[in-house]
Amino acid sequence: MAPKSVCIVGSGNWGSAIAKIIGYNVQRQPDAFEKKVKMYMYEEIVDGRKLTEIVNTDHENVKYLPGIKLPENVVAIPDVIEACTGADMLVFVLPHQFVKKVCEQMKGHIKPGAVAISMIKGFAITGGGIQLISHIIAQELGTECAVLMGANLAKEVAEEEFCETTIGSKTDSTGQLFKDLVETPYFRVAVVKDADTVEMCGALKNVVAIGAGIVDGIKQGDNTKAAVIRLGLMEMIKFGEEFFPGSRRNTFFESCGIADLVATCHGGRNRMLGAAVVESDKTIQELEKEILKGQSFQGPLVAREVCSMLEEKGLCDKFPMFVAVNKICQRVMDPKLFISCLRNHPAHL
Amino acid sequence: MAPKSVCIVGSGNWGSAIAKIIGYNVQRQPDAFEKKVKMYMYEEIVDGRKLTEIVNTDHENVKYLPGIKLPENVVAIPDVIEACTGADMLVFVLPHQFVKKVCEQMKGHIKPGAVAISMIKGFAITGGGIQLISHIIAQELGTECAVLMGANLAKEVAEEEFCETTIGSKTDSTGQLFKDLVETPYFRVAVVKDADTVEMCGALKNVVAIGAGIVDGIKQGDNTKAAVIRLGLMEMIKFGEEFFPGSRRNTFFESCGIADLVATCHGGRNRMLGAAVVESDKTIQELEKEILKGQSFQGPLVAREVCSMLEEKGLCDKFPMFVAVNKICQRVMDPKLFISCLRNHPAHL
Ligand SMILES: NC(=O)c1ccc[n+]([C@@H]2O[C@H](COP(=O)([O-])OP(=O)(O)OC[C@H]3O[C@@H](n4cnc5c(N)ncnc54)[C@H](O)[C@@H]3O)[C@@H](O)[C@H]2O)c1
Ligand SMILES: NC(=O)c1ccc[n+]([C@@H]2O[C@H](COP(=O)([O-])OP(=O)(O)OC[C@H]3O[C@@H](n4cnc5c(N)ncnc54)[C@H](O)[C@@H]3O)[C@@H](O)[C@H]2O)c1
Repeated sequence: MAPKSVCIVGSGNWGSAIAKIIGYNVQRQPDAFEKKVKMYMYEEIVDGRKLTEIVNTDHENVKYLPGIKLPENVVAIPDVIEACTGADMLVFVLPHQFVKKVCEQMKGHIKPGAVAISMIKGFAITGGGIQLISHIIAQELGTECAVLMGANLAKEVAEEEFCETTIGSKTDSTGQLFKDLVETPYFRVAVVKDADTVEMCGALKNVVAIGAGIVDGIKQGDNTKAAVIRLGLMEMIKFGEEFFPGSRRNTFFESCGIADLVATCHGGRNRMLGAAVVESDKTIQELEKEILKGQSFQGPLVAREVCSMLEEKGLCDKFPMFVAVNKICQRVMDPKLFISCLRNHPAHL
Repeated sequence: MAPKSVCIVGSGNWGSAIAKIIGYNVQRQPDAFEKKVKMYMYEEIVDGRKLTEIVNTDHENVKYLPGIKLPENVVAIPDVIEACTGADMLVFVLPHQFVKKVCEQMKGHIKPGAVAISMIKGFAITGGGIQLISHIIAQELGTECAVLMGANLAKEVAEEEFCETTIGSKTDSTGQLFKDLVETPYFRVAVVKDADTVEMCGALKNVVAIGAGIVDGIKQGDNTKAAVIRLGLMEMIKFGEEFFPGSRRNTFFESCGIADLVATCHGGRNRMLGAAVVESDKTIQELEKEILKGQSFQGPLVAREVCSMLEEKGLCDKFPMFVAVNKICQRVMDPKLFISCLRNHPAHL
């Protein structure tokens, strides 16, 4: 088989970290992959220079991943059609709000037989419930689309700190192909078939992390926090069973499951939000302005959409944590009542 | 059925916290339990007074759980035979090194049909491998013996902070009986049949916690720590499959599994030991003197015994973390090499 050509769609913090890995890996495996890796980059001007030009001459994404050298065979391209044309493998790492628009531009320019992977965490929130990003990509482009999720912070991965990740792929061959593309001695990959569950974990963990942050905010100890993380995991499992038939419990033992959940509940932004919600009575929007300088927290959006799905199916009483987190984010419930909502959790019966 | 009479065997930090719960619970359920709860207390003199007398007049264990009032129907008794005679339910909460000796004293004084539960974490290390404490109790006394394990710190439970726990009982009726005895709105109990796995978790988590501490010591981030916790959990699961046939994966989703593991890897003593082992080159014995004032860490003892079991069965290569933690504790391996032992973990294949 001819070496496969790779296009990375997205070049922010995570996109650049994964570009570093892919750039090196294709060089190590010349029979499997073409050396040149094309990276679609949304053009920006940084200090008077085009960001694509900076990346292509200095080999560093000074805006989104400063301090990390990118391999020289990674080439930034500002035109998404030029970037994706001829690619056998498409790696999506855009923030989720840009996926649909970018796919629309790519449509009609995809090489027949190309396969995609989404490394984008979060659901697409369409008003009428949630949609998996990988499903949007697959639908828009007519390709198979795997997913990659795990306890992976771009900065730590770029600095070659050891971590794990999970690829979810409905076919073994696509899973293995992407594993070959991204695995390194410091970035360890397990492949599972249960792709929808893998992707779902990447969104729901943020709801649980708000719960964990609330526990920090109300100054309860490690055992209460462990209970909240566990009950949150049980709701994630139950959500999978209800909305993604065939979802398997074993998938939650992978990096995308417990590992990402534990890391996010101890370190992430949504945990911080949970604590902040207890400590002040500002709205989520005000806190976003303060903490994220205008970006939005994933957790509250996912919680709201998930709860409207639960309501529609009459399932709210089976998901007391998701429901409480949503109410607290909407400011219709006092965060001090959070724990009392969990005392008769269905997991205790 | 006549109300059951309860004897608590042990009255340290955890014994006193659980005595507080049991004392209240029997009062709430007069049809199910006798009001008087007997608590075997190893006699000590505190400030010139007998500790049993202090507990029975002031209703506070000033030495092991100061600041917490015990219900007046909990009666401390210094003679274990007097304490256990006539009891239908025996609750073991002694430190594990005293179990065998105390059981030998009790033998022959147990009411026929009495049932026991062990809340003691850790294995009994007999030289020829490990033994479950509940098995020792069952053998010595000829009773059924359930177990209770979870993310439960005595102080937090005594202060009525919300947490969960797991009862493992081979029979449903005994599991339910003990659930009725100890469940409160802040101490939530799930019952599973897979008792040996529940108990095993309470010992093995300390080995993983040393690994998590090493990650802290070598200053790696949350994602590396999450990977180590996950790989440790995978080794716990595998250990169950090898040494406790019938061990079920679902049990690891209970409080005794992931919750206790996560709490211990972020807060416990063995985590502290893991960090200390990186930061100094003192022996474990020296660190015990410094950190625990002479008590011993569970993790290194369990690691050593577990590794000799693995060696005997030729299974070391399936448990790279347990093996590395043991070598690091024995000071025959540099803790900086810990992560490199995990790069080709069987969970990545
Ligand atoms: N950052 C991480 O540590 C990390 C780790 C794992 C997964 N992820 C996931 O990866 C995804 C991307 O995250 P990130 O951290 O790389 O994002 P980022 O905020 O660093 O990247 C923003 C990117 O969006 C591009 N962009 C801006 N406006 C655009 C437009 N109109 N159209 C197209 N592109 C535009 C920017 O050029 C930039 O490349 C997210 O879904 C995130 O959940 C991130
Ligand atoms: N402390 C906790 O937070 C906690 C939580 C869950 C489980 N556990 C488990 O409970 C068990 C007991 O722990 P603890 O914290 O209550 O212990 P502790 O150190 O507080 O208790 C020591 C107890 O041992 C007694 N003792 C001393 N010498 C004795 C002797 N020669 N014979 C009999 N008894 C003697 C003391 O009187 C005291 O009651 C342990 O296995 C532990 O793993 C503890």
